[in-house]
Amino acid sequence: MRQTGTRDHLITTGLQLLHTRGFHASGVQDIIQAAGVPKGTFYTHFESKEQFGAEVLGRFWEQRAARTIAVLGDETRPPLARLKAWFDAKVTEREDRKVHPGCMIGNFAAELAVDSRLVRDRLASIFAAWTTLLAATIREAVAAGQITIALPPETVAAFLVDAFEGSVLRSKVDRDPTALRRLREVVFTTILVEKAAA
Amino acid sequence: MRQTGTRDHLITTGLQLLHTRGFHASGVQDIIQAAGVPKGTFYTHFESKEQFGAEVLGRFWEQRAARTIAVLGDETRPPLARLKAWFDAKVTEREDRKVHPGCMIGNFAAELAVDSRLVRDRLASIFAAWTTLLAATIREAVAAGQITIALPPETVAAFLVDAFEGSVLRSKVDRDPTALRRLREVVFTTILVEKAAA
Repeated sequence: MRQTGTRDHLITTGLQLLHTRGFHASGVQDIIQAAGVPKGTFYTHFESKEQFGAEVLGRFWEQRAARTIAVLGDETRPPLARLKAWFDAKVTEREDRKVHPGCMIGNFAAELAVDSRLVRDRLASIFAAWTTLLAATIREAVAAGQITIALPPETVAAFLVDAFEGSVLRSKVDRDPTALRRLREVVFTTILVEKAAA
Repeated sequence: MRQTGTRDHLITTGLQLLHTRGFHASGVQDIIQAAGVPKGTFYTHFESKEQFGAEVLGRFWEQRAARTIAVLGDETRPPLARLKAWFDAKVTEREDRKVHPGCMIGNFAAELAVDSRLVRDRLASIFAAWTTLLAATIREAVAAGQITIALPPETVAAFLVDAFEGSVLRSKVDRDPTALRRLREVVFTTILVEKAAA
């Protein structure tokens, strides 16, 4: 396997493992075993498990960001419909699986934000990028006269990301999508308030 | 040390350790070392680390619930003032510490909700009790004509708990209370909407 192929294979395998089991519950031994590579190979590609975790988190966000951009950036639809579609997709993703490991971003924030500066910095960039994407669509919906908001789009967007992460945690405990449905209901009733058609 | 004294000592020590470092990052060895007891003693009192974790989480909630009841149940103040005081206390707690391990309830939801039924059931009870406390005060504030809400008190309360947990995660990443201040601002601007004095 080529060097970049091995590195990529380790990240793909690690993404599955670290998402399902968590960072601290997955040892380097588990990762190399699942990937079928010798331990030395792991340390050829990654300085430490912490660095590996940061790379895996980056990959998780790449995939998540691509889906988010596909939904929120779909300019064939009005901005409010895109915002609703984004929240709907979160409910649907959860409806499809009884046991769900939740969001790796929130899980890593819980497990690693205090002790790992590397992961914390990566999480901060992810939160900022995600907030920017949501804020842009919220701004469009306001400009199009579809919704009213009581606070600036950036404030609302940052809050929605936080509220989403909390709702995902709760839905892990509930083992059902109730918290994500509640999030959608509260958001579109009180925070992104649809204007009555003129 | 009496048997109950040792058990209590282990829980108190474990609360500190598991809250600061997380569940999986703290070994039984770390716990008994911090508590200064032999390993056999740990297993005299707890069947497993998982059971220990559930007990520690219960202790965390006992303390958290006592503070919550003290603030939300203080009938010398109007209900809206109590709700504001609860959110203010969350901001203040964070302002006092640069590095904060966040909320053990959210951390355990992230780390253990999928794999441990014992912890998951404990978390579900905690979320239910917490929601009931908040919902009661919200209901009082509505009845007193202080606020309007667009959804039932239980829905709003459950959402506020979720949004709080997400905001705590974010404030771990930010290392400051921004997310908790934003939570308070969004909540009292859009969700628990103060009625203008008649």
